[in-house]
Amino acid sequence: MDIEQRLRDLGIQLPKAPKPVGAYVAARKSGNLLFISGQLPFAEEKLIYQGEVGRDVSIEQGQAAFRMCALNALAQAKESLGDLERIAGVLRVVGYLYCAEGFVDHAKVLNGASEFLVQVLGMEKGRHTRMVMGVRSLPLGAAVALEVLMEVTEE
Amino acid sequence: MDIEQRLRDLGIQLPKAPKPVGAYVAARKSGNLLFISGQLPFAEEKLIYQGEVGRDVSIEQGQAAFRMCALNALAQAKESLGDLERIAGVLRVVGYLYCAEGFVDHAKVLNGASEFLVQVLGMEKGRHTRMVMGVRSLPLGAAVALEVLMEVTEE
Amino acid sequence: MDIEQRLRDLGIQLPKAPKPVGAYVAARKSGNLLFISGQLPFAEEKLIYQGEVGRDVSIEQGQAAFRMCALNALAQAKESLGDLERIAGVLRVVGYLYCAEGFVDHAKVLNGASEFLVQVLGMEKGRHTRMVMGVRSLPLGAAVALEVLMEVTEE
Repeated sequence: MDIEQRLRDLGIQLPKAPKPVGAYVAARKSGNLLFISGQLPFAEEKLIYQGEVGRDVSIEQGQAAFRMCALNALAQAKESLGDLERIAGVLRVVGYLYCAEGFVDHAKVLNGASEFLVQVLGMEKGRHTRMVMGVRSLPLGAAVALEVLMEVTEE
Repeated sequence: MDIEQRLRDLGIQLPKAPKPVGAYVAARKSGNLLFISGQLPFAEEKLIYQGEVGRDVSIEQGQAAFRMCALNALAQAKESLGDLERIAGVLRVVGYLYCAEGFVDHAKVLNGASEFLVQVLGMEKGRHTRMVMGVRSLPLGAAVALEVLMEVTEE
Repeated sequence: MDIEQRLRDLGIQLPKAPKPVGAYVAARKSGNLLFISGQLPFAEEKLIYQGEVGRDVSIEQGQAAFRMCALNALAQAKESLGDLERIAGVLRVVGYLYCAEGFVDHAKVLNGASEFLVQVLGMEKGRHTRMVMGVRSLPLGAAVALEVLMEVTEE
């Protein structure tokens, strides 16, 4: 089953790819690697999740925020590649949490992105390596940010 | 001299590769690149170093913690590649320190990983680029975490 | 117009590449990828910008600090490649800000590096993907640090 079809089956609409909020590009390809800039939990040009995970933002909300970032990364891939079928796999995901002092549940929160990527892309393409950390702050006060590196096929 | 032999000469036993603590994989290969998920200072399924470097964890302990992460990264490479001889080089290492406010000795602490990688893999393969930073928190309250990207040869 | 010429036209002198401050190398190539270690705002072996962005260091100073890091990354590329013309493009930039609690202008500060790279390398080569975050601390108390990944051509 193809990826666009799977999105439809899951009732998910691919959003418009968010515009970069600075002097950079959202995606850049080098050989079979597609680098995607850090994605924030934007929906319809609005930053949905702000504040500290574990205080202002619950674990469940943090998971939803990471899922939103992952969806935005897919939208960037679509805009860059033209066709989601050119995604050969997700290589590396980095999750950044603006989180409260003493927070320890980073892995659980980032699963919001990881499980979504596997759900949409399937096990073989969707399973990735990852790193997750709590940071002091993120652009615009965002609760989370996500970086994604993909392997892609030639046109 | 091969890498397994060098480990034996150093009296180092390669541990069992730690299982991912979330919905992801420990390693993924793309062409000649082997991405390894962030490694924590686990030994025998127990998280050994927790708390802030520079307060709960000394610089020497932080170095030992990073060495443990690097050893776990080697164990992941072995599990993924089958043979450590397929490691052509370490390209990039990122060290994350959960550290006290005002801490400035990040480089010295990360040397625990860097020197270990050179000791085991030799200068040519083991020398890598790196980045190190102090973060607000790490999964499970770990004192440090390490990400490793390797260049590998085909089977 | 070539890159060295553009630097001269901009009145910019490429500095001596800063030496690594630990057991690692400043740059390492794998295929068409050139990994460059995290660069600090050093000039003539002196760390110029220290302290928290948004408190000790203004946004304008933070931009200048990132520009300095980007210039140092170019110096590393020159030292590693021998010729800046071998830079095919900047793939990924990560900006780390040691910044005050509640800081939200990360993107604006990192533009100091992004705009500089485009100015020197031109739109096609200079435009990159990026990630930016506020961290708890950086080596030596530096205000910012910058990681750069380039695509390079064969000799």
